[in-house]
Amino acid sequence: MNTFSTKSSSNANHYDLIVIGSGPAGQRAAVQAAKLRKTVAVVDAREVVGGVCVNLGTIPSKSFREAVLYLSGFRQRNIYGSAYRVKSDITMTDLTFRCNHIVQHEIETIDAQLARNRVDVIHGFAKFKDPHTVEIKNISGTTTKTADFFVIATGARPFRPPNIEFNGTSIFDSDDLLQIKDIPRTMTVVGAGVIGIEYASMFAALGVAITVIDGREKILDFIDSEIIESLTYRLRAIGVTFKLGENVASCKAREDNQVVTTLKSGKVVVTDCVLFSAGRQSATDKLGLESINITPLERGLLKVNKNYQTEQPHIYAAGDVIGFPALASTSAEQGRLAASNMFGLEAHPQEIPLPYGIYSIPEIAIVGKNEKELTDHQVPYEVGVARYQENTRGFLVGDREGLLKLIFHRTTKELLGVHIIGDEATELIHVGQAVMSFKAGLDYFINAVFNYPTLTSCYKTAALDGYNKLRAQGTA
Amino acid sequence: MNTFSTKSSSNANHYDLIVIGSGPAGQRAAVQAAKLRKTVAVVDAREVVGGVCVNLGTIPSKSFREAVLYLSGFRQRNIYGSAYRVKSDITMTDLTFRCNHIVQHEIETIDAQLARNRVDVIHGFAKFKDPHTVEIKNISGTTTKTADFFVIATGARPFRPPNIEFNGTSIFDSDDLLQIKDIPRTMTVVGAGVIGIEYASMFAALGVAITVIDGREKILDFIDSEIIESLTYRLRAIGVTFKLGENVASCKAREDNQVVTTLKSGKVVVTDCVLFSAGRQSATDKLGLESINITPLERGLLKVNKNYQTEQPHIYAAGDVIGFPALASTSAEQGRLAASNMFGLEAHPQEIPLPYGIYSIPEIAIVGKNEKELTDHQVPYEVGVARYQENTRGFLVGDREGLLKLIFHRTTKELLGVHIIGDEATELIHVGQAVMSFKAGLDYFINAVFNYPTLTSCYKTAALDGYNKLRAQGTA
Repeated sequence: MNTFSTKSSSNANHYDLIVIGSGPAGQRAAVQAAKLRKTVAVVDAREVVGGVCVNLGTIPSKSFREAVLYLSGFRQRNIYGSAYRVKSDITMTDLTFRCNHIVQHEIETIDAQLARNRVDVIHGFAKFKDPHTVEIKNISGTTTKTADFFVIATGARPFRPPNIEFNGTSIFDSDDLLQIKDIPRTMTVVGAGVIGIEYASMFAALGVAITVIDGREKILDFIDSEIIESLTYRLRAIGVTFKLGENVASCKAREDNQVVTTLKSGKVVVTDCVLFSAGRQSATDKLGLESINITPLERGLLKVNKNYQTEQPHIYAAGDVIGFPALASTSAEQGRLAASNMFGLEAHPQEIPLPYGIYSIPEIAIVGKNEKELTDHQVPYEVGVARYQENTRGFLVGDREGLLKLIFHRTTKELLGVHIIGDEATELIHVGQAVMSFKAGLDYFINAVFNYPTLTSCYKTAALDGYNKLRAQGTA
Repeated sequence: MNTFSTKSSSNANHYDLIVIGSGPAGQRAAVQAAKLRKTVAVVDAREVVGGVCVNLGTIPSKSFREAVLYLSGFRQRNIYGSAYRVKSDITMTDLTFRCNHIVQHEIETIDAQLARNRVDVIHGFAKFKDPHTVEIKNISGTTTKTADFFVIATGARPFRPPNIEFNGTSIFDSDDLLQIKDIPRTMTVVGAGVIGIEYASMFAALGVAITVIDGREKILDFIDSEIIESLTYRLRAIGVTFKLGENVASCKAREDNQVVTTLKSGKVVVTDCVLFSAGRQSATDKLGLESINITPLERGLLKVNKNYQTEQPHIYAAGDVIGFPALASTSAEQGRLAASNMFGLEAHPQEIPLPYGIYSIPEIAIVGKNEKELTDHQVPYEVGVARYQENTRGFLVGDREGLLKLIFHRTTKELLGVHIIGDEATELIHVGQAVMSFKAGLDYFINAVFNYPTLTSCYKTAALDGYNKLRAQGTA
């Protein structure tokens, strides 16, 4: 085998790398290895590439979200009033009819990228026979392939509690949700993680009365609590009820098409339907891991070291299959780092903090530390805040309640964290990410000129707010 | 006079600084001086603060622009088709009815900021009597004030060529435009500067057939030509005709309510109305500059040195009154720098490049150098390009033609310029601005993880494109 070949022959029996799964982690691992001129195959059990991200998760939900925002006139209610909403009788068809088109576009984009990089794509179920061999089953039969390295990037599926009678129409998980025929009047969302909160907020924006149930006392507890309080306040304002610290005992469809959710505390919630988004289950049960001495953790999670290696050093794992944060962006990066590591490429010349984006309505994005983490580590910090309400562009686009919060070191003024809730948060966070990467802080925002009107100017307003606080304390 | 006073008594006769004009330049000069504990007054000839920016320029035009984008469904046409547009019979009232509200909000914000900083606001016409004295006339009479320093921030008004018969209804300038009663079917725009192009694109998005006339062969020639070609292509596609290298000989309203514009080349353009946006005239003619030995340039422009000082070193000028680039953001910064300089504050600890934003449809934003400038200076560069079409969020929001272009040094890979046309360009540019400020380049974008899906990821796509070009050349 010639490792300098730039073209891997399709149907080769041996590869430098076989990637199992073609979601963001698998794609990036494959492309990175291919760019290093390695022979690579991607095996995917679906008939199309893209994984859950493209086919059931990120892309359909973001497509749905854009449709909700536009057709409901949600962003513009503050400006034009509801008289100007695009449609008064929105249907699920209105909201999802573009979805297939967008999914198709993404699949074509990924296919083209893999082909351009001469990555073989094999559709079928992969199962390890020994540490260097997988058996691949599909409609045409079974083949066997070997490789020097593997990346397991098989992702995850919604976890289905065994005592719940899922029926796909009134009791369903997030994979089924966008297939429902009518917009319900009322919905219960069990599980207030990222997916649960994203969908709860979208349906609330459509006017659906939502009840969110979670066993934890706080939602999204990796996010700054001021941001989460703002989110819960705004969600309540559009009709979301929170039942936190509550666990579901049972969930049953009644004959009148209502679903009765009974809580362990004895309370009862009756709604048109129930979305279960109570965590995810890694898709590792059919990989034959038992035959290669890899033992998954609870819910099928694979354990990896900092290089994304499993117990078998030549078998890596990346993406949702290894758990938190399980975002498309971070999964792709894990795939890239895994492939770089296995072929000896130094992939981390710079320390750049990871941003997190939550596509709820309103959007949330964070980078760096939150107040609690810094307090726990006794880092002396101060905070500067800007409200979209006082920002000209925030006012223009009708987001009166957005908030941008800078956390910086009290003495060095170095930026330690940025937390944003509001329009374009997932984009805006990257300015803070860059400034943090270069170990800069308040002075940057105070000295930079930003376009006017832009939401980015919130960084300057927040920096001035923080600076004034330092001055009042006699430290600036 | 106590220079340490934190409160200037209203109706003081002497100030540390008198600022003439309360637009972005005047506001920031006043606030900066006040933060240095100087006594400051702002004199404005209007009954309200904010200058042209708030009352006739930036704010009303951006408010109009948001209304055009939303009510016409312009952004969503690619996604939902025109069947989903918000209103099929949009009127000028629909488009401007929120404008007063937004203007009022801005005025209140500025008033509150000036009051919080204890800046006196005096409404009246200011005229220099001697280098340290101004006479202020208003409805209650005439008063005289003296100051150690002055900032002239009186802005500019549209230049009105003397041979054109402006009537405010069918032949008008940009100050009159948003007062017209009906959306015209056809419009001629004379002058393809920033204001002309912004309004031409907004009315074109509404379906108005536009003819743009300019004596220059290229529009917006400070912008990268690939971006401008993309803009002209997209404007033509929505019904804009360009007549460049053409000058207007005459412009007359005909009895049938049509306006006949005759070009020096003999051609004739007949439209419902004509917008003249052929440059601006600095508002310096009534300031009594002749009595203090300051001589304006052509069209009333004031000449300043790099510290924004006029021929009289204690009299500064900032904002539109000194000409290009005459943007709200840069004018505010000039005001801040002028006030910092006069009171000895070092205001430039960091070299941060200025971004420029043009709020046309589509938006344009740039920072750093363009290809022509670099070629002229023989700097060896390479280019990396990303198209919104291939970006998931670009596809989701329906912008299929956006473009982000990175220009970087061929050997050091340092970022030299970013040029963007498309949705959110004016926000996105600030990531490039930060990376340029820290003298970083391609590696940053290749190593950073960006949220998915975001338009910001175009930076990474463009960086990979650029990197691949270098590799093909054998230099990476």
